Amino acid sequence: MSTSHPLSIASDNHAPIAPKILEAIIDANHGSAAAYGTDEASKEAYETFKKAFGPDARTHLVFNGTAANVIALKSMLEPWEAVICARSSHLHLDECGAPEAVGGFKLLTVDCPDGKLTPTQIERELIRRGDQHYAQPRAVSITQPTEWGTLYSISELEALRAVIERHGLLLHIDGARLSIAACALKTSFAHIAKASGAHAISFGGTKNGLMGAEAVIVFSKKEGNRIRYLRKQMMQLPSKTRFLAAQFVAFFDNDYWNELARPAIETAQFVHSQLREIKHISVVQDVQANSVFVKLPRSWNKHLKDKAFFYVWDDHENIVRWMFAYHHCPDDLQDFIATLKNLDQESLLRTPPRPEA
Amino acid sequence: MSTSHPLSIASDNHAPIAPKILEAIIDANHGSAAAYGTDEASKEAYETFKKAFGPDARTHLVFNGTAANVIALKSMLEPWEAVICARSSHLHLDECGAPEAVGGFKLLTVDCPDGKLTPTQIERELIRRGDQHYAQPRAVSITQPTEWGTLYSISELEALRAVIERHGLLLHIDGARLSIAACALKTSFAHIAKASGAHAISFGGTKNGLMGAEAVIVFSKKEGNRIRYLRKQMMQLPSKTRFLAAQFVAFFDNDYWNELARPAIETAQFVHSQLREIKHISVVQDVQANSVFVKLPRSWNKHLKDKAFFYVWDDHENIVRWMFAYHHCPDDLQDFIATLKNLDQESLLRTPPRPEA
Amino acid sequence: MSTSHPLSIASDNHAPIAPKILEAIIDANHGSAAAYGTDEASKEAYETFKKAFGPDARTHLVFNGTAANVIALKSMLEPWEAVICARSSHLHLDECGAPEAVGGFKLLTVDCPDGKLTPTQIERELIRRGDQHYAQPRAVSITQPTEWGTLYSISELEALRAVIERHGLLLHIDGARLSIAACALKTSFAHIAKASGAHAISFGGTKNGLMGAEAVIVFSKKEGNRIRYLRKQMMQLPSKTRFLAAQFVAFFDNDYWNELARPAIETAQFVHSQLREIKHISVVQDVQANSVFVKLPRSWNKHLKDKAFFYVWDDHENIVRWMFAYHHCPDDLQDFIATLKNLDQESLLRTPPRPEA
Amino acid sequence: MSTSHPLSIASDNHAPIAPKILEAIIDANHGSAAAYGTDEASKEAYETFKKAFGPDARTHLVFNGTAANVIALKSMLEPWEAVICARSSHLHLDECGAPEAVGGFKLLTVDCPDGKLTPTQIERELIRRGDQHYAQPRAVSITQPTEWGTLYSISELEALRAVIERHGLLLHIDGARLSIAACALKTSFAHIAKASGAHAISFGGTKNGLMGAEAVIVFSKKEGNRIRYLRKQMMQLPSKTRFLAAQFVAFFDNDYWNELARPAIETAQFVHSQLREIKHISVVQDVQANSVFVKLPRSWNKHLKDKAFFYVWDDHENIVRWMFAYHHCPDDLQDFIATLKNLDQESLLRTPPRPEA
Repeated sequence: MSTSHPLSIASDNHAPIAPKILEAIIDANHGSAAAYGTDEASKEAYETFKKAFGPDARTHLVFNGTAANVIALKSMLEPWEAVICARSSHLHLDECGAPEAVGGFKLLTVDCPDGKLTPTQIERELIRRGDQHYAQPRAVSITQPTEWGTLYSISELEALRAVIERHGLLLHIDGARLSIAACALKTSFAHIAKASGAHAISFGGTKNGLMGAEAVIVFSKKEGNRIRYLRKQMMQLPSKTRFLAAQFVAFFDNDYWNELARPAIETAQFVHSQLREIKHISVVQDVQANSVFVKLPRSWNKHLKDKAFFYVWDDHENIVRWMFAYHHCPDDLQDFIATLKNLDQESLLRTPPRPEA
Repeated sequence: MSTSHPLSIASDNHAPIAPKILEAIIDANHGSAAAYGTDEASKEAYETFKKAFGPDARTHLVFNGTAANVIALKSMLEPWEAVICARSSHLHLDECGAPEAVGGFKLLTVDCPDGKLTPTQIERELIRRGDQHYAQPRAVSITQPTEWGTLYSISELEALRAVIERHGLLLHIDGARLSIAACALKTSFAHIAKASGAHAISFGGTKNGLMGAEAVIVFSKKEGNRIRYLRKQMMQLPSKTRFLAAQFVAFFDNDYWNELARPAIETAQFVHSQLREIKHISVVQDVQANSVFVKLPRSWNKHLKDKAFFYVWDDHENIVRWMFAYHHCPDDLQDFIATLKNLDQESLLRTPPRPEA
Repeated sequence: MSTSHPLSIASDNHAPIAPKILEAIIDANHGSAAAYGTDEASKEAYETFKKAFGPDARTHLVFNGTAANVIALKSMLEPWEAVICARSSHLHLDECGAPEAVGGFKLLTVDCPDGKLTPTQIERELIRRGDQHYAQPRAVSITQPTEWGTLYSISELEALRAVIERHGLLLHIDGARLSIAACALKTSFAHIAKASGAHAISFGGTKNGLMGAEAVIVFSKKEGNRIRYLRKQMMQLPSKTRFLAAQFVAFFDNDYWNELARPAIETAQFVHSQLREIKHISVVQDVQANSVFVKLPRSWNKHLKDKAFFYVWDDHENIVRWMFAYHHCPDDLQDFIATLKNLDQESLLRTPPRPEA
Repeated sequence: MSTSHPLSIASDNHAPIAPKILEAIIDANHGSAAAYGTDEASKEAYETFKKAFGPDARTHLVFNGTAANVIALKSMLEPWEAVICARSSHLHLDECGAPEAVGGFKLLTVDCPDGKLTPTQIERELIRRGDQHYAQPRAVSITQPTEWGTLYSISELEALRAVIERHGLLLHIDGARLSIAACALKTSFAHIAKASGAHAISFGGTKNGLMGAEAVIVFSKKEGNRIRYLRKQMMQLPSKTRFLAAQFVAFFDNDYWNELARPAIETAQFVHSQLREIKHISVVQDVQANSVFVKLPRSWNKHLKDKAFFYVWDDHENIVRWMFAYHHCPDDLQDFIATLKNLDQESLLRTPPRPEA
């Protein structure tokens, strides 16, 4: 795909830098600044994260989400401890084995049709504790919103917290799109952190309008100290941190994150609303965040790809993912929706609709 | 240190983004673009690197220099193979153990007073080849310019190439400041690559005026394919690659790198020239790149630190490093030099100069 | 459990050293011998393995099965390649995360109710090949006999071979009890190797009458060379190899392995045959090797544990594993069977039998 | 080299199993026994180690010395912490990179001409503590006796203890031949442990008459707990532990270790005493343990190798190592010494002796 494609709904990381974020980078570009997180912009960012996530939040900026996940988990785990996660998680499917190869830890994957782990599923994994032959289940990693565009509600997060505390586990949130979740749930980051009792959060910027920056947030001094060294050893200590920090400061300033999340969610909801009258497709997951997963007749793909760039998510079932970002609005999708409706009409003329499994 | 310090000569990564680099980022920020290196800007960058380093150059963009070094070496090595390097190398001293912990490989360190490995030193390390008990020396990693601000001449690179080829070794160049070397040697990157016969190069941008981007360049298809996966697994695959790529395209455009390197070198040379008349100090390394290493009376440190931010490089000997970047010019240093001269005068009044060991 | 327990049917590694194996150790104990696999006994062992597995077999002796599995797989894989295996495999459940932490590779686990992977299941895992974000499925690891005491038939092995070859995969056999399989299938090791087309085999001795020795067998020169170094680096190069080698030489001599396997299998079959008339239990897997998995009323456990030491394999379902070794014979189990029958009678008096799920 | 070579003085691991050790293996071979260290023999071994090393000693049996070293160190270190050791240490030279590749930690090597680290050398390595860029020096690993056959005296161990405690470091002893040291120093293991304040000891059996077993001894509960899992994950949990345990029980019984160490030391001393009158050679290290390092005319090697198997330790200088074990006695070496004297006479006839550097 080229930068000149008219419309990409393939991923929120296809979006450009949001205007105020770019301004913040430009503004940070005057004079010399210390490196490696000791500059003024970084200090401001740490305070900003404390305001957003609570006074115990200790933040370390890193380059990307894979690293945020692996470093966050590694900071909490002994080498023989394992992570319970959904089989559909980015951690398992999309990190090219970084958790195992770089983090050195095992993932205990659980089938979660909607991407969400339940307390019961977690408890089912708690076998053979204290048995030296078995990688010990210790951390639970959830994604909020999930890779299937669904959300844990606040009460679901509270239920997770209860099971985590009852069994002495540790909770990690892969929050590559946590600002989407906070916007959709109409709540604050601190509320999500508190309700879930998260011990570590990978907080994403890049998918939410930043040029490129992620944060690892932990809430204890011990893990904070470990991350100082682990981040560097895991090759994720940026030098010119002011430019990452400035992006996050702008992101939180006046809840700019909320302004960026809202159009992404609303565009997804708009598209979802338009799909109801289309007979030959099925929306396979609740639309709660900024993505819509749709099972399509395979023959439609090429026609739709003329209108927008997107990925087939499940090749076997021909489930596609349409994902929206801050720079999208319903109007951008009118032509795409029209094409869908035309395809549906043509199909109707040929064959009556059948529900697809 | 704060962004508001008047003058930092502590590191070239304290510099802001060079004007044309920032412009390139801004220019890249229109519309959607594919991620993970498949965008148009990335493709342009790959071609740009081919022009600079030769048609076999295969380039992968990464976030920082630690990662460039570890990925470049890992792509060439079997798990039991070791890397010969100077004890003063960044690879050994400044990566928090990443080569060992993340790369999994041993460093065979050699004492190099001027930071440069010699063919004789390399050959001395070639023991016990084929012995399963001994981590097998396979790659040689040099830094150009070195961490001590010295340069391998073209004929020294050719001599390294000869020993590398004779013994079936592999050469890696840590080129975090390779553009400084090319400018100082008045040569091209391709010439350095060819003279040294380098198998892999970590090519730095961040220390030379970029906001943040490094490149791993290899010259064979096999290593290129390995790096595709290794980069992702080692958590160094950026998503919005257009913004890293655009920086490099601008860096090479019209030899902008040369414009950025020249003032850094010239300022170092100017400072060096001013030091000759100062009696109580000694310049401990040849000044060939953009840094000056000076042994000072310890009591001077605090006075000098009022004028500029810099690091004591060897605390035991009180050797300091003054490092210059594209945004420095001789004038910026006038006040600092004056302070040095005053300190020297005051010392002269108290005690006659003695040569320091 | 103490050495003085009258009867252990918990694991075949509770058995003592088989007589001819101990004799071989004693016989090897004269004079000096070179270490690290260069002694005469080791050379004899390598030839012995070639006779058993075919002329291309390259054998490296190691200490235990965990290591045999990890080294065998590591010798075949690039760092970003993953292993398809049953969720019930020892590799996944019983190595404390060694594949991930020491091998650095991801396991792609598949639910196999009888412990056996099918070609269809393997093919279902072959997604996203060539996608740098996804740990690439490359090796398939099967256990023969499985951890559930079942066997792949020769034709099932041939079907695996076909799918392995079709997709350019690599087959590893965890053969911790491969001699049980060969005896039960009434075939040779070479036939199993050839039918399956195995690229690497972990061949077990310890569970089959040896004091302690395992072998990694590969069939190509490339992997053989890798294992030389990998074995040492993975801390599995024994020094006094003559004592490991002598055990294997005796094991293969005159098919002693067959003599050791037969009573283990026959005792399992005898016990299985006696269970048919017991109403309150169910045998949950085919009895094809040297173990019997039985679902029991939980209240029986303590009575049975007075008679023999064994493990509850699935605590939730109260499935127990009874495992037999070369030193067992049907007579040893008479008292245990009688206890089972008594428990069944007592239960019958109290409640009519109900089938348990 | 073959088992039939008349005399090996190449390594103490060329020796056969000492008689009482083999008897202990044979005696342990009755009936069933639990596996993985829960058997009676293992429990007896743990108590035996407590008697030898003090009541806080927590012992885990492993297969070989490479593993003992790596596991001992890994149990004490955070991932970013480094180990100070002699450049001549087995840890650095003879583990094929296992500390780095499997342990994940960096070795900070120090030149020690006699194999012994001094407090001053250790303190010189204590730079940049708290600096996230630098792998943090934390453990010190010494070998007792050293790889050069020298010994730390009790007062040298006490001096190490002082520097370790002063700087919050951790001491590891590679004691592959610690029984040689205890015998030579005419002291107990507990005294060595106490004088040095060792936090972890790799205690060797295999080089001192055992068939094959090593022990990791730590003195705190925290490290003991870590080792339980680390040992298994690092593929070093033996199943039939009774046979390793029984060897150690016999080793300590009635100070059998002392009986085994004495002839090894005495044979080394005898050989050393015979070398004094030989003009053309020089003994390059103090002979304090069971080995003699001798610089020879290179032309002598082949004649001497007809009489005994041994290794050239430094090919450049033609320094050879002659190492003696429990089964050697001065008489065994008479012929070898005579050959040496003959070679010396022949050389004298040709050229007057010159001292070699």
